[in-house]
Amino acid sequence: MLESLKKYVYEQNMRLPKLNLVTFTWGNVSAVDRDKQLFVIKPSGVAYDELTPDDMVVCDFEGNVVEGHLNPSSDTPTHAYLYQKFPKIGGIVHTHSPWAVSFAQAGMDLPALGTTHADTFYGPVPVSEALTKEEIESDYEKNTGIVIERTFKDHQIDPMAVPAVLVRQHGPFAWGETAAKAVYNAKVLEVVAQMAYHTLQLTRNDSSVPQYLLDKHYYRKHGKDAYYGQKK
Amino acid sequence: MLESLKKYVYEQNMRLPKLNLVTFTWGNVSAVDRDKQLFVIKPSGVAYDELTPDDMVVCDFEGNVVEGHLNPSSDTPTHAYLYQKFPKIGGIVHTHSPWAVSFAQAGMDLPALGTTHADTFYGPVPVSEALTKEEIESDYEKNTGIVIERTFKDHQIDPMAVPAVLVRQHGPFAWGETAAKAVYNAKVLEVVAQMAYHTLQLTRNDSSVPQYLLDKHYYRKHGKDAYYGQKK
Amino acid sequence: MLESLKKYVYEQNMRLPKLNLVTFTWGNVSAVDRDKQLFVIKPSGVAYDELTPDDMVVCDFEGNVVEGHLNPSSDTPTHAYLYQKFPKIGGIVHTHSPWAVSFAQAGMDLPALGTTHADTFYGPVPVSEALTKEEIESDYEKNTGIVIERTFKDHQIDPMAVPAVLVRQHGPFAWGETAAKAVYNAKVLEVVAQMAYHTLQLTRNDSSVPQYLLDKHYYRKHGKDAYYGQKK
Amino acid sequence: MLESLKKYVYEQNMRLPKLNLVTFTWGNVSAVDRDKQLFVIKPSGVAYDELTPDDMVVCDFEGNVVEGHLNPSSDTPTHAYLYQKFPKIGGIVHTHSPWAVSFAQAGMDLPALGTTHADTFYGPVPVSEALTKEEIESDYEKNTGIVIERTFKDHQIDPMAVPAVLVRQHGPFAWGETAAKAVYNAKVLEVVAQMAYHTLQLTRNDSSVPQYLLDKHYYRKHGKDAYYGQKK
Repeated sequence: MLESLKKYVYEQNMRLPKLNLVTFTWGNVSAVDRDKQLFVIKPSGVAYDELTPDDMVVCDFEGNVVEGHLNPSSDTPTHAYLYQKFPKIGGIVHTHSPWAVSFAQAGMDLPALGTTHADTFYGPVPVSEALTKEEIESDYEKNTGIVIERTFKDHQIDPMAVPAVLVRQHGPFAWGETAAKAVYNAKVLEVVAQMAYHTLQLTRNDSSVPQYLLDKHYYRKHGKDAYYGQKK
Repeated sequence: MLESLKKYVYEQNMRLPKLNLVTFTWGNVSAVDRDKQLFVIKPSGVAYDELTPDDMVVCDFEGNVVEGHLNPSSDTPTHAYLYQKFPKIGGIVHTHSPWAVSFAQAGMDLPALGTTHADTFYGPVPVSEALTKEEIESDYEKNTGIVIERTFKDHQIDPMAVPAVLVRQHGPFAWGETAAKAVYNAKVLEVVAQMAYHTLQLTRNDSSVPQYLLDKHYYRKHGKDAYYGQKK
Repeated sequence: MLESLKKYVYEQNMRLPKLNLVTFTWGNVSAVDRDKQLFVIKPSGVAYDELTPDDMVVCDFEGNVVEGHLNPSSDTPTHAYLYQKFPKIGGIVHTHSPWAVSFAQAGMDLPALGTTHADTFYGPVPVSEALTKEEIESDYEKNTGIVIERTFKDHQIDPMAVPAVLVRQHGPFAWGETAAKAVYNAKVLEVVAQMAYHTLQLTRNDSSVPQYLLDKHYYRKHGKDAYYGQKK
Repeated sequence: MLESLKKYVYEQNMRLPKLNLVTFTWGNVSAVDRDKQLFVIKPSGVAYDELTPDDMVVCDFEGNVVEGHLNPSSDTPTHAYLYQKFPKIGGIVHTHSPWAVSFAQAGMDLPALGTTHADTFYGPVPVSEALTKEEIESDYEKNTGIVIERTFKDHQIDPMAVPAVLVRQHGPFAWGETAAKAVYNAKVLEVVAQMAYHTLQLTRNDSSVPQYLLDKHYYRKHGKDAYYGQKK
């Protein structure tokens, strides 16, 4: 079932090592079929150079395996919960890309310091609260999804306008309308984290961009008045 | 029209990923035909591995498309304005190369700390003022060109002697007598930004080179008494 | 003798340059045959692209060469001592990977700042004491092993739970149940050292993970209740 | 003339881009024939991928061209002076490798912080004094050699025991008994500069290694009691 979606999810997973976003098996991409309320995800702990489209696992929105000969990613309950709660997203990416992890470990939001950031993220990328002992010891991966959703609700951030989060002490999740856009956003996150790190080391002054620059660059690429790129 | 210039501009654009100056589509090169008062530029948002010489777009000095089946780079009005105001430049490069962006985001001039810098840039590479709300909300890309020109006028810098700028909160533009030299200058800018960053972290002392070292290295490579390289 | 082990040790050594863990010849992998009380190790100072399985050297637990036409790694007595004292390890890796070396040179434990660390190391990776003048001037490489063992004993760390050490002023040793796992652990060490470095530069606050997160992530991947990856 | 030396110098020059020590044409290697009092050096400003053995230039110890159809490296008078004054060296390398340049620009000696350094450099790699206005404005490249020699004399450093220098505001020169060893030393210099930078950012404490560790590691690899590597 979902053969073409499996092939697509396989291809999007294979972009992670090409974009230097993963070490060993530390990353996964999923994509959803909203009609069927199912999503396809990478199997757990399988090396990228051994992966095939047929290894992809089909899961439902509770994280149960519907089809597949391998265990799905251990982060599957996080993906499932986000598909439930963020109804506009079509794909999710989790990595341990090192610059984004550094901000997650430092417990710091990734500030919007320039147009590279503003082109993709309409404001700072938030760091989540740390999971509590109770949240970690039971349903850890689902609770990771709950904490992500709560982060966006508490800060009143639209997850489609800022399509990524830094899970504190852990690392980034990114998403998008499609899995391809989610992978794109995961890479942008890593690049702007690298830029922000060096900017913050050069100057501890707050060099966040003003709202009007955020508006300009974000809406130059998104929404009905976008004029970057080619007409579809 | 301008078929050989299109091929040349295509080739210079393709150097950007090879020199590790771009992520995704975040860069563009243009070159000018001064006789015809036209320039050729990369189309907007097209991936480098899908680009062909035929995709290049011909524009006039107001930034209007004269020929081409694709939209030109969204930065086209910046290029157009710079070709108007800097009459000796033959090519322009814009990238989001991460070390140069870090200085642009920090709002810091890139100081001349050594001979690697002095060989190409006859003094600090200036950071521009931030664009105002009004400048951003109307004719943003043209105003970016205006702010660049103003930066060089206000600081009395010759744009041929310091062929690059850091647009604050945004990133670098570089230029040169030819597009090939502009690409070269864009790469030098990235390398000397990396070196300057680490130097500044090692010592916060002002370690700018003296004027006579700047003279020696810049004129060893430029002007009538240059003796670096081979006679042409 | 031990032909298949030689081939295996050769292959594990060849992973070091692929994983960007060595410059020139600065690294070595060994693996043990516990029944025979022998181990196989890379020869000293031979370039990776000239290495063959047949060049591997067989040594006993005193570090004496039992078979081989080349000198074994100068670090052989360290390997020998660790095989004696850490009875559960099957392979050992030594490198001068630059992020791990930076912590070793700074004389700092590598703190557990996130789940990437906790997935592999059940607590901080300790830095050893510096060897004394006497320890350096006689039996230096054996004494390196003695200092490593003492580090784990003094801090009451189980070397199977934290399978790596930073030898002060020198660099990392990693180990594991197999040489393949030791190489894996050596790479994880390098990646988490990079992440920890940047985290510590962003915030000097203690951002070590709590014990319950360490438990969760370490036991998600290790021991009888592990659920990461595929059933063997 | 000196055809085999030209081929050798060509090959050693071609190692620089492979070892990631040069951007564009910013590096050169020479090797000497002590009997003939001549040395062979890379031509000035020629791209590495266009270089051929036949392009190499033969010079005497005053820096005059004896044979060659191209201009020699602009740094030729520095090489010539060092061959005069350091009678045991067989090859010289100059690069603008970025970590070494960062220390040169900061005006800081590269301290000996660990065994990776001590294996090759028997103590800190010194930064030279800055050249004076007069030294820069006349015979600049020869004066660079004079300043290097003076640095070693003033600090009573044996150039064979510490086979590299950081020319202040400029960058590294490295040398060795052969050009191949000089290239090796240039790479070690870059790697230990990277490690030292990160160590110094982690701790501003003086973590220089003691004399007895320097002795142990340097003499483990050099001199009559060396036991690293294979017998020749």
